[in-house]
Amino acid sequence: SNKGVVLKSADDNYKLNIRGYAQADSNFYADDAPLSSGEFDKFLIRRARLTFDGTLFKNVDFRIAPDFGGGQVRLFDAFVDLHYFTAASLMAGKFRQPVSLERMQTATNLTFIERAYPAQLAPNRDIGFMLHGAIAYPGYKAQYTPQPVFKEFIGYEVGVFNGVRDNQAVQNADRDTDNNKEVAARLFSHPFMHSGTALAGLGLGVAGTWGQPQQNALVSLVSAGQQAIVTYNGAATSSGEQYRIYPQMYWYWKTVGIMGEYLVSSQNLYNAGLNKHALQNNEAWHFNVSYMLTGENNSFFAIKPNKRFDPAAGSWGAWQLAARWSELNIDKSTFQNIGSVANPYSFASLSNSIRNAQSWALGVNWYLNDNLKLMTDYEETLFVGGAAGNTDRTTEQAVFSRVQVAF
Amino acid sequence: SNKGVVLKSADDNYKLNIRGYAQADSNFYADDAPLSSGEFDKFLIRRARLTFDGTLFKNVDFRIAPDFGGGQVRLFDAFVDLHYFTAASLMAGKFRQPVSLERMQTATNLTFIERAYPAQLAPNRDIGFMLHGAIAYPGYKAQYTPQPVFKEFIGYEVGVFNGVRDNQAVQNADRDTDNNKEVAARLFSHPFMHSGTALAGLGLGVAGTWGQPQQNALVSLVSAGQQAIVTYNGAATSSGEQYRIYPQMYWYWKTVGIMGEYLVSSQNLYNAGLNKHALQNNEAWHFNVSYMLTGENNSFFAIKPNKRFDPAAGSWGAWQLAARWSELNIDKSTFQNIGSVANPYSFASLSNSIRNAQSWALGVNWYLNDNLKLMTDYEETLFVGGAAGNTDRTTEQAVFSRVQVAF
Amino acid sequence: SNKGVVLKSADDNYKLNIRGYAQADSNFYADDAPLSSGEFDKFLIRRARLTFDGTLFKNVDFRIAPDFGGGQVRLFDAFVDLHYFTAASLMAGKFRQPVSLERMQTATNLTFIERAYPAQLAPNRDIGFMLHGAIAYPGYKAQYTPQPVFKEFIGYEVGVFNGVRDNQAVQNADRDTDNNKEVAARLFSHPFMHSGTALAGLGLGVAGTWGQPQQNALVSLVSAGQQAIVTYNGAATSSGEQYRIYPQMYWYWKTVGIMGEYLVSSQNLYNAGLNKHALQNNEAWHFNVSYMLTGENNSFFAIKPNKRFDPAAGSWGAWQLAARWSELNIDKSTFQNIGSVANPYSFASLSNSIRNAQSWALGVNWYLNDNLKLMTDYEETLFVGGAAGNTDRTTEQAVFSRVQVAF
Repeated sequence: SNKGVVLKSADDNYKLNIRGYAQADSNFYADDAPLSSGEFDKFLIRRARLTFDGTLFKNVDFRIAPDFGGGQVRLFDAFVDLHYFTAASLMAGKFRQPVSLERMQTATNLTFIERAYPAQLAPNRDIGFMLHGAIAYPGYKAQYTPQPVFKEFIGYEVGVFNGVRDNQAVQNADRDTDNNKEVAARLFSHPFMHSGTALAGLGLGVAGTWGQPQQNALVSLVSAGQQAIVTYNGAATSSGEQYRIYPQMYWYWKTVGIMGEYLVSSQNLYNAGLNKHALQNNEAWHFNVSYMLTGENNSFFAIKPNKRFDPAAGSWGAWQLAARWSELNIDKSTFQNIGSVANPYSFASLSNSIRNAQSWALGVNWYLNDNLKLMTDYEETLFVGGAAGNTDRTTEQAVFSRVQVAF
Repeated sequence: SNKGVVLKSADDNYKLNIRGYAQADSNFYADDAPLSSGEFDKFLIRRARLTFDGTLFKNVDFRIAPDFGGGQVRLFDAFVDLHYFTAASLMAGKFRQPVSLERMQTATNLTFIERAYPAQLAPNRDIGFMLHGAIAYPGYKAQYTPQPVFKEFIGYEVGVFNGVRDNQAVQNADRDTDNNKEVAARLFSHPFMHSGTALAGLGLGVAGTWGQPQQNALVSLVSAGQQAIVTYNGAATSSGEQYRIYPQMYWYWKTVGIMGEYLVSSQNLYNAGLNKHALQNNEAWHFNVSYMLTGENNSFFAIKPNKRFDPAAGSWGAWQLAARWSELNIDKSTFQNIGSVANPYSFASLSNSIRNAQSWALGVNWYLNDNLKLMTDYEETLFVGGAAGNTDRTTEQAVFSRVQVAF
Repeated sequence: SNKGVVLKSADDNYKLNIRGYAQADSNFYADDAPLSSGEFDKFLIRRARLTFDGTLFKNVDFRIAPDFGGGQVRLFDAFVDLHYFTAASLMAGKFRQPVSLERMQTATNLTFIERAYPAQLAPNRDIGFMLHGAIAYPGYKAQYTPQPVFKEFIGYEVGVFNGVRDNQAVQNADRDTDNNKEVAARLFSHPFMHSGTALAGLGLGVAGTWGQPQQNALVSLVSAGQQAIVTYNGAATSSGEQYRIYPQMYWYWKTVGIMGEYLVSSQNLYNAGLNKHALQNNEAWHFNVSYMLTGENNSFFAIKPNKRFDPAAGSWGAWQLAARWSELNIDKSTFQNIGSVANPYSFASLSNSIRNAQSWALGVNWYLNDNLKLMTDYEETLFVGGAAGNTDRTTEQAVFSRVQVAF
């Protein structure tokens, strides 16, 4: 294989796979930010992951995967999965909550450098237990995978976790801050997978979370260009019922790929004294389309170049073009004055938080070989609100690029 | 082997072993804590360890082992051991101080999910140098091990270290805070190891530390359920002579295992101005007994199931029952008013710190195979003191469980 | 090989190398520091590095190397290098800026335990892009190396990076703090490498950086004994043109090794209001000489003992003696009063910052085998300024030692 090293015992009861990847990014903005804003043209290591996983006695999978990128050192995965039955495996530890489609796409396989708004508001890694399984098309046999199931007729996951806030980054201090847990579930199907038609690569699903956090602090939301665009009143928290719903789909047919998902995220905002309240229903969606210029099969998984980069042999690897439209709507209840005229109070201010962001992006991806991928995206974001005097923020224009090596 | 991968050079001069393990824990309490206490029902990654160790030119052992669990990323081991003579090896770097018996038991082999009070007050990893060796029963040959010696007639260790406070967690910022060093030593014997009698598995030892810290800050002590039960006056420190003594024993005979140790930890408490003083002699002990329901040999080391979990073949792995009694006594000098009536001063207050904690626990451990272990403990702790008005804290009732995979 | 494990695919398209090293240090001072100074006699893990690197499809090299020493966990290297042409490779990610000669010497191969003043003021790891290449002596063929080139007739590097401050440690939060980037370049040659004369091992080069930081905070400079000796006025920053120039040389001939470099580092200091300014030109240099007592070839790279330590066979490994002279001059503009008589202002005070430090050191290094190295240095530093009343600080006398294992 050209991805990772597999070390096995002779009786196949022990299998360890050592893999890793690094993403060296460049983020440049049309408008150079002032020193006070904290976002600059910069080079950064977006991710630097080492993954140790494998299989023990055929029915036990495990993974430990720390990440050294993003200016931090964090544990991303630490799980064990008992899979005596492909239709019902039990996973315990720290792993991805099975919610947003784009969030579940492995970071090395993303079509764009940064994920869109729905993935941003979805949980990333969390700690808990998950029952999951793959159900084959009648007459076929399902294959086990430790990750959320994407290659079978029907895949499902249902789990209980500590709980994750909207746009909460993966963290080490992953102990819970209240006694209540979060439930997440997903159902995904390729209804025509053995049809032999153009629809064979169509996947449809729906996922969601439900929980009752107690005074969970709120996290700022960021634009496509990774600049803070929604900053909550510092003392505000989320308490009581919180849910997210994610209808999601992709369709891969020959050189063409399409992915989209929609999100509604509902939570109850409270001030520090718990005597001021707003029900907040935020919405987000994204839709992207990509095309392999060099004729390869497009995929939710890793793209395999037909010929790897070798100028002497006249081969240049694989090239992909992509476009994306993405939108974020913040509930207007967030900005309403729920105090008095004399003592106004709102959960966020339109003078520094936006009500709506619309982003469009174009990308070019170059797969030199199975292990090396170069990406460049241009993304423009139009805002409603978010600037002094409740005016609209200046349109954001960002050029992001990435050199990614996976071994 | 089914623990780790061993990579060797052809001439055997180079051996690298890559191993790891993860512990996915659930901690639940009968009384749900209020948000202000900070301890909640939760899922957590207790440990996620990667270990790179091996042997160079037959006589040099090394280990580098970072841990990514417990909400932190920390270096646990980084040592080199020169073992030209089995009876006298020299270790340098960061490794376990050779003190508490239960602390020296590898975390994957523990009988209970959390160690008892004596181990809590003992040093964990520290940086320094250690002379250690194994002496065989007359007529036998001792085997070298890099870790504290537990398999020989006599094992000893004596080392000098930066010094560790009672209940100080393993840390990265492992530079010393004063010029004085701590000495630790241990002697352990299996007096009847080749007797062929039931006492062959009896081990007896004594260990201790001695140091003279200067204004070392004090660390809170925690209950069996990992909640803070002794919280020192913020400005108080330990200065001058500090020692710990640990008589310790275990006895493994067929399916039965017994382990116990006693501790007295003595230190001198001072206020910030160094003009108020109390000599504090804390005491702790624990005793546990375990029994293999499925007939395997009980052990201080890894338990090997006779048959691994395979329901189709009617085999269910190994099962172990365990019980523990553990107690912590805080010196009453800690609570005495050593100020005046008008300006009282004590090193801790009975209104939030306990004088005595007594814990009993029952545990069930399920070894599905050599690599996968499930544990569940119920532990109840009775307190003297520690609640408002110097009353007794409510009895703590905790259920901890663990899914552990080791590769 | 006795350094690391190399795992390959059968077709040689995939090569992964797993290596690591640990340094267990002891730092002791003739004068025991008071508790307030924060520098104590101590044991420490100076570095504990794991390195995963390799080659993909013959022309793509990569490395991910976290370090767990120095009381922190940090990503040191995360890069990919495209080397279709030995004379012009393109590297992207996080890696060493190609500036100071001693900084570019791998930490396991240093002659002294701590690098000298010029390396201290040079950039260490930074994130960016670098064009680099090796040019062979006419009639010879250059070999590719991912690191700065030291084995060829001519090696060059030129790169653009986020930018690094004088004595800024490698950090994880490696995003830039302004929009301007730093350029670094180096040219190094072995003009007589195929001459067959004593000068074959002579290397000469020059390197430098140039940037325009905006309000970059300043980092304290430290003595040979790692104690703070230059502490800037807290609000002072560096803004505008900043450059460093590093003429550098080494010469290895049989058992003898010589290394030296000179530095001038120029930056513009400003107060918080940006209305007080000083142009600061600091100077530093060092020169060291070493000698292999046991007859091995001295080297900028790893020393290979002729016979490894094996007392039974009467062989004792390799022994090296070394001496170093090193000096740091802080521009007097740093200490000038650029405020008024009534409201004086200077960027540092002679009462706690030195104007000049002169250090001499003697070292003994013992290479027991290719993997194990013991080092002991005695270093004495004389200061001008730096003590209360603008008097001279007491001469610093430090004994550092190291046990290093590399696998």
